[in-house]
Amino acid sequence: MARAFLHLNGNQTFHILSRSSVTRASLPHRSMMVTMSQNQSYWASINADIEAHLKQAIPLRPPLQVFEPMHHLVFAAPQNPAPALCIAACELVGGHRDQAMAAASTLHLMQAASFTHEQLPLTDRPRPKTRPTIHHAYGPNIELLLGDGMIPFGFELLARSNDLVQNNSDRILRVTIEIARAIGSQGMIEGQHYELECPQSEGEELCDIGWIEQVCKKKEGEVHACGAACGAILGGGSEEEIEKLRRFGLYVGTIQGMLHGAGKLEKELMKEVEELRNLALKELEEFEGGKVEAISSFVNV
Amino acid sequence: MARAFLHLNGNQTFHILSRSSVTRASLPHRSMMVTMSQNQSYWASINADIEAHLKQAIPLRPPLQVFEPMHHLVFAAPQNPAPALCIAACELVGGHRDQAMAAASTLHLMQAASFTHEQLPLTDRPRPKTRPTIHHAYGPNIELLLGDGMIPFGFELLARSNDLVQNNSDRILRVTIEIARAIGSQGMIEGQHYELECPQSEGEELCDIGWIEQVCKKKEGEVHACGAACGAILGGGSEEEIEKLRRFGLYVGTIQGMLHGAGKLEKELMKEVEELRNLALKELEEFEGGKVEAISSFVNV
Repeated sequence: MARAFLHLNGNQTFHILSRSSVTRASLPHRSMMVTMSQNQSYWASINADIEAHLKQAIPLRPPLQVFEPMHHLVFAAPQNPAPALCIAACELVGGHRDQAMAAASTLHLMQAASFTHEQLPLTDRPRPKTRPTIHHAYGPNIELLLGDGMIPFGFELLARSNDLVQNNSDRILRVTIEIARAIGSQGMIEGQHYELECPQSEGEELCDIGWIEQVCKKKEGEVHACGAACGAILGGGSEEEIEKLRRFGLYVGTIQGMLHGAGKLEKELMKEVEELRNLALKELEEFEGGKVEAISSFVNV
Repeated sequence: MARAFLHLNGNQTFHILSRSSVTRASLPHRSMMVTMSQNQSYWASINADIEAHLKQAIPLRPPLQVFEPMHHLVFAAPQNPAPALCIAACELVGGHRDQAMAAASTLHLMQAASFTHEQLPLTDRPRPKTRPTIHHAYGPNIELLLGDGMIPFGFELLARSNDLVQNNSDRILRVTIEIARAIGSQGMIEGQHYELECPQSEGEELCDIGWIEQVCKKKEGEVHACGAACGAILGGGSEEEIEKLRRFGLYVGTIQGMLHGAGKLEKELMKEVEELRNLALKELEEFEGGKVEAISSFVNV
């Protein structure tokens, strides 16, 4: 984390950080620590709000035999930055956190569904060694069903937010399309499909960096791109801001996938990750205000 | 079919049929044949339109390794009346077929996803003997993924229909919530969950009629109720019409499930089905116009 943060404060990104509202002391080490802690508490506060929203949205109500496992599986899935990125993008363009909360929660539900289904014991599934595993608290059948239940529930949550924020229905429908595409056959599903096609030789995976990047772009990149774009849409950003944040999210998510999903080709991979970080930060150059620094720290998640 | 149609023309339902615009000749047998054929061509024309809409919505475009199996699985799933009921309800309340076409297509996609996932070879899955099986053209992993892809694609299709029908976004969001609930944890998923709980003894299922009805109500009933309600919402029906059609759909779907899903308790089951048919037709009593007869024939699907 510290090393990653040093990169963020390197030359490449200073022009962004210098616009932030954080006071920079003459002691670089100390100011860096302050900023890091501020950014960490920013993400922590976003993630806590998303979790609280989801806990309230998925009460332990009847039928308990359905809601109890759903509750468990939604929170057992690992947190990933796409939902928080949605909130951060909304705030960056001047929106209020509440405007993007339903979309962020929906993104978590979609990723929890995908994670749950990725753990199913299917006979023809190759299991990449680097993929995290979970303790199966329920049988495969329940996990299949509940994963299937989380996807529509996410869309319901999003559509219901129309009641809270009046005259927002066109934005919510636009975000519905964005999320459906990012998690569907032109996004995450396509990435998972590519993943199945990794050439194998005697049980060893023979994946080159191009293949890894393509999988990560589709599996993680597009959902982060979607998160950032949706936050900007819901926060009232301009079309230019939406597209900049979409590209920022694409780079951030691809980096995320490459760093956490792949365990090979370390040197080449790190070079590629560096390039993606620079491209990501370039997308933030024209934004202003106190939230720029916070969102730019995403490149080091 | 002929026997079922005779029931529809019995005393219980004559007050409905007498309002229809179909001319009744003095030769009952002949007029019945004409009406049946008219209703059949009504359903056939609806189903042909839904299929054409879906074929146009799911083109064989890149990535072909994703869209080709999706195309196949969407059309390999058996047709069930919920999507057609959505169109029929829309037309019954005076709406145009196009207004409900996206919602009807979405309902087919949701049911195709559910059907695809029900066929997955999971280790802990009991297989009811009466359930239809399909030829598996693809591996379980692809079928899992593509099922997961169909659900968001359905919501995308629905949200996109906002572009075609202006100032309809609130209705579309309402229908999104309806469909999400019907296929999710308070509808179809709950029914599939109940289904897993059928008590077994030495491999024999020991399911009573109450259990069968509960499963059918949740699995098939609620999605048909949703289809009919959504059609009425999109066609501009009043709240009273929407609720009547919702109940009509619930009865129709439950009947559908009981007749096609269960193979036991035939005599008791048929008595229960008779009662549900009467309840269903009672919901149509206050509707008027030429489409009443057409939609009422749904009780015999």
